[in-house]
Order: sequence, then C-alpha cells, then structure tokens
Amino acid sequence: MRLVTLGDIQKAATTIAGTVLRTQLVPCAWADADRPLWLKPENLQPIGAFKIRGARNAIRPDMPGVIAYSSGNHGQAVAYVARQLGMPAIIVVPDTTPEVKIAGMQNLGADVIVVSPGEREARALELVARHGYPLIPPFDHFDIIAGQGTVGLEIAEDLPDVEVVLVPVSGGGLLSGVGTAIRALAPNAKVIGVEPALAADARESLAAGRVVSWPLEETEKTIADGLRSPRLSELTFAHIREVADAIVTVTEEEIGAAVGVLARSARLVAEPSGAVSTAAYLYHREELPLGRTVAIISGGNINPALLAALV
Amino acid sequence: MRLVTLGDIQKAATTIAGTVLRTQLVPCAWADADRPLWLKPENLQPIGAFKIRGARNAIRPDMPGVIAYSSGNHGQAVAYVARQLGMPAIIVVPDTTPEVKIAGMQNLGADVIVVSPGEREARALELVARHGYPLIPPFDHFDIIAGQGTVGLEIAEDLPDVEVVLVPVSGGGLLSGVGTAIRALAPNAKVIGVEPALAADARESLAAGRVVSWPLEETEKTIADGLRSPRLSELTFAHIREVADAIVTVTEEEIGAAVGVLARSARLVAEPSGAVSTAAYLYHREELPLGRTVAIISGGNINPALLAALV
Repeated sequence: MRLVTLGDIQKAATTIAGTVLRTQLVPCAWADADRPLWLKPENLQPIGAFKIRGARNAIRPDMPGVIAYSSGNHGQAVAYVARQLGMPAIIVVPDTTPEVKIAGMQNLGADVIVVSPGEREARALELVARHGYPLIPPFDHFDIIAGQGTVGLEIAEDLPDVEVVLVPVSGGGLLSGVGTAIRALAPNAKVIGVEPALAADARESLAAGRVVSWPLEETEKTIADGLRSPRLSELTFAHIREVADAIVTVTEEEIGAAVGVLARSARLVAEPSGAVSTAAYLYHREELPLGRTVAIISGGNINPALLAALV
Repeated sequence: MRLVTLGDIQKAATTIAGTVLRTQLVPCAWADADRPLWLKPENLQPIGAFKIRGARNAIRPDMPGVIAYSSGNHGQAVAYVARQLGMPAIIVVPDTTPEVKIAGMQNLGADVIVVSPGEREARALELVARHGYPLIPPFDHFDIIAGQGTVGLEIAEDLPDVEVVLVPVSGGGLLSGVGTAIRALAPNAKVIGVEPALAADARESLAAGRVVSWPLEETEKTIADGLRSPRLSELTFAHIREVADAIVTVTEEEIGAAVGVLARSARLVAEPSGAVSTAAYLYHREELPLGRTVAIISGGNINPALLAALV
C-alpha cells in the first residue's frame, strides 16, 4: 500500500494555497509552564474546519461535479470547493447532522440529501452511478490525507521545536496527514491522536494491530458529531500505525468543558470535535509528554444553543 | 503638539514583538461580493485585546512599577506586561467593569481597586503620588498611540490594497494609531471610526471641531463596556481630525447581533466593543465606501452569560 509522503503534502500545500487560510499558531497565556500551548485554529477556515484542505487537494478543476457523504464539515468543504471551481456538488448527510452544518452546505449551493447514518455510504455510491460524478470520500483517499497533512507542515514550519501535537481522530485522515508531516520535519515530537471515549475505535485498532469497528449506535452518542465515524480505513490505519505515538480518549464532560475554556480563555468558538485536543491537554496531563504542545482545533461549527450551554 | 508618525509606529512594532501576537487577517466567506471583508482578530492576543500593544510600548523595563485606570482591557494589558517585565501593577477600575475582566487582572498578579466610574482618574493619581510609580493612561499617551498603531501597520503590510478600515473608538488611541499607519502606507484607504450611538462623543467632536464630552451616565448605558469613555483627549483628537475620514455609530441591537454573527460565522468570540466594526459593516452599508474592507475586532473579553445570550 502506498503511503503519503512529505513530498505529497508539500505538493498539496501548493495546490490549496488560493483556497485555504494558512492559519497561524495562537499561543495560550493560560498554559502550564512546563507545557506551553499553541492552538492551531482551523475553525477560522472559510467553512470553519480543516476539511477544506483535503477537499481542495482531492477535487480537480476538470471534474464535471462531485459527490460526498459526510457528517457535516467535509460536506461543507466539498460544497465550498465545488462552488469555487464552478461545478455541482451533491452531499449525502446522516439525519444526526446539526442543522447549522446542513444550512451551511445549502448556502454554498450544494444539493443536500439526508439519510439514516447507516445508509449514507451506499446512497452516495448510488448517486455516483447515476450522475457520473466522482465520490470525494471524507478520509479514505490519498489526496485527502495529503491535503490534511498541510496542517502538520505548517505546524512544523512555525514551531520547528514542537514536542507534542494533539490531533482529533475520527476516520483518521487528519492524524494520518499531520503525523506524516511531523515525523518527517520534527521527528522528536510525539504525535498523539485524541478521540471521545464513546468512539474509541482508533485506540482499540492501534492496540489490536488491525482496524476494529465500533457500532454506530455507540459512536453516535458522543457530543463530538464530527468524530462519530465507527472505524478507520485500511489506508488511514496503515498511516496511523506508522506515525502516531498514542491515542488518548476524553469524556463527554471533558469535551464540553474544553469548548467553554476555548470560548472564554482563547476567544475561539470550537465545536466539540474541535475541542477534544484541548480536553486532552487540560484533563489528561498524566498521559501526555511534557514540552511545547500544539492542539489542533479542527473546527468551529457548533449549534448556537449548544455553544450557549457550554460557555 | 507632536503627533505620532509612521516611524514611531515602526519602532513600536520592534519593541512589542516578543509580547504581542502579530495577528493574521482572517477572510470572511460570508462577505458581500463588492465589499470583501477581512477580520483583524485582536481578541486572540494573550489578554484578549489590542491594548497589550500600547501597554508594552509604554512600559519600560526600568520602571519600578506601574499604575493604570481602565474599564478592563487596558488594565489587563498593563497587568500582563508588568508581570512579564517583573514589576508590580496597581489597576483602578470602575464598579461597572465585568467580573471576567477584574478576575483576569487579579490572575495576572495585579492589585485591583474598584471605585465609582467618576473617581477612577483621581484615585489613580492619588496612588501615583503614594507609590511613585508612573501612570500608564489608557489612550492619552504618545507611546500608547504608537503601540496601537502597529495594528494598522500590520493591516497595510498584509493587505496593501485595503480600501476601508473600520476601527472601534472610545478614547481614540486605536483610531489615532491605526489611522496614522494607514494614511502613510495605504493613503487611498478610508479610515472609519465606529462607536455606539450611546457614546457618540467622537462623532460629535469631529463635527464640532473640538473635544466634546458626553455625560458618563449616558455612555455607561452601552453594552460595549470598553467604549464608555466619555471623551477623546486633546492628543487623540488631534490625530483623529488628521487621519479619520468619518465616524459611524451603531445601535445596541446591532452590536449584540454582530457578536452573534462573529461567533456563528467567523467562529470568533468578540466582546461588544470588539464587534462594533462588524456591526457597522453588516448594518450600515449605505454609510460605508465599497471595496476591500478590514474590521478590527478589538477584543474578546465578554461575560459568558452575555455571550450565551447573544449567540
């Protein structure tokens, strides 16, 4: 199996440059002295999440249109890029998707089709057959992983002596790409995935040495709606076993508290999925190495009522 | 009267570099096509507001200690810089200051003295006489204006063809400094101050051709607690009449709505004072020129309950 290389990620950085914000690292005055913290605020991207990086890298301007299935942010990213490149987009979403994300995709001109969580992949493939547009998967794709890896490339460029990188994990595209870049450019840094305890399939997979699926009925319970994917793919698993040092899991209470801390102390709106890395930093000190730490805030698309309850 | 020059601001940029985040411009996907919008997110500064720039520029490492009076963010900035430079700080605040800001100053090691709004200046001068520490005023100071001007320097560096800059106004330090930098580096850009209609003393002053004071009982009513200063100083007025093209006023409803838009669509937590520039952009189109616009988000220290009510 061919894995993404630093060269692929560097090439992706060039491809996505006109679409994606090269986010700056934001230092946190409230960090522990022995673990200085910087946030990588991917919630400031045009669609409010890092997913725009992979989407732009995977969608070629000569495609006739694109189809995606997504719990939300990937769908918004595909819709955004498709509009920018002037092609139609059809997005299949599970009926558990927050309204703010569905509205976001519709406002970007995409056709949104709502299905039950179990059928979204099958329904997307059906649409591919009907329209002849390629499927842009949320994580199981070489170019998606290379695109997400640009987050790691920028971290290593901006903080070459980084020692710990905390990365939210769902299907594993972000962790695969970021880990690949960090391994190549900051080989002494620890790359640590973070996922909800209610969707800890990546941790179990790493321990088992193979992809382990969790039941959707279980993973659907986490407040972190972007991290409900029940399994890694063979491709992301192959990357993660090479580049991740550990996976830390966080509770629902910790995720909610981290959303509040980020709003009050970092003045950033993070969605629960985007706050898991901060939750690990704040509440799992004993599981993390000391040193200069970067927490990736992967997205900020949170329902306003939930944000109001958590600040 | 000697006014701040571009050279003073450039020198300030060097002085503050180790303390202040050089914030990046964040493009807004939701802007009008004929008025592309970038946010200058000063809420991401270590103390959550641009005030750290002026404070760092005005406080010299050889001072024995510092005293300030402030509605909050300037006090936090002085406390932060004093701690960084290893000197004591005493901050006098009005009893209308949000708790979050008082707690912020105390956590930074400052002594906080709460007084009624009318006496804060007198009380601060009394403390100066007793302790022999210099007073670091919130805006009426050459080095403060030069420090705040670095916001404008960075805007002009990052977006040389900027056409409109929207700047919150209270005592006028930010508008004086930003306007000076923009006039020098982007002379075709319009520099527009924004203040609450309930504290529109700057607009009245500009129209009258002299500093006009508003009663504190009036300006205290605005939700924008950082913009309640009842008057410009002679120094800031002298700058503003040279460098500002207009002052736009916004209503309380518009300010609150802009806080919500920034949280939902830009994923940034802005305090009401920091959101007035966005309020002008969103709700006062007819008073603003077209073209590439930058809105300065001056701060993000909002009481959580108010944020919850506005998102």
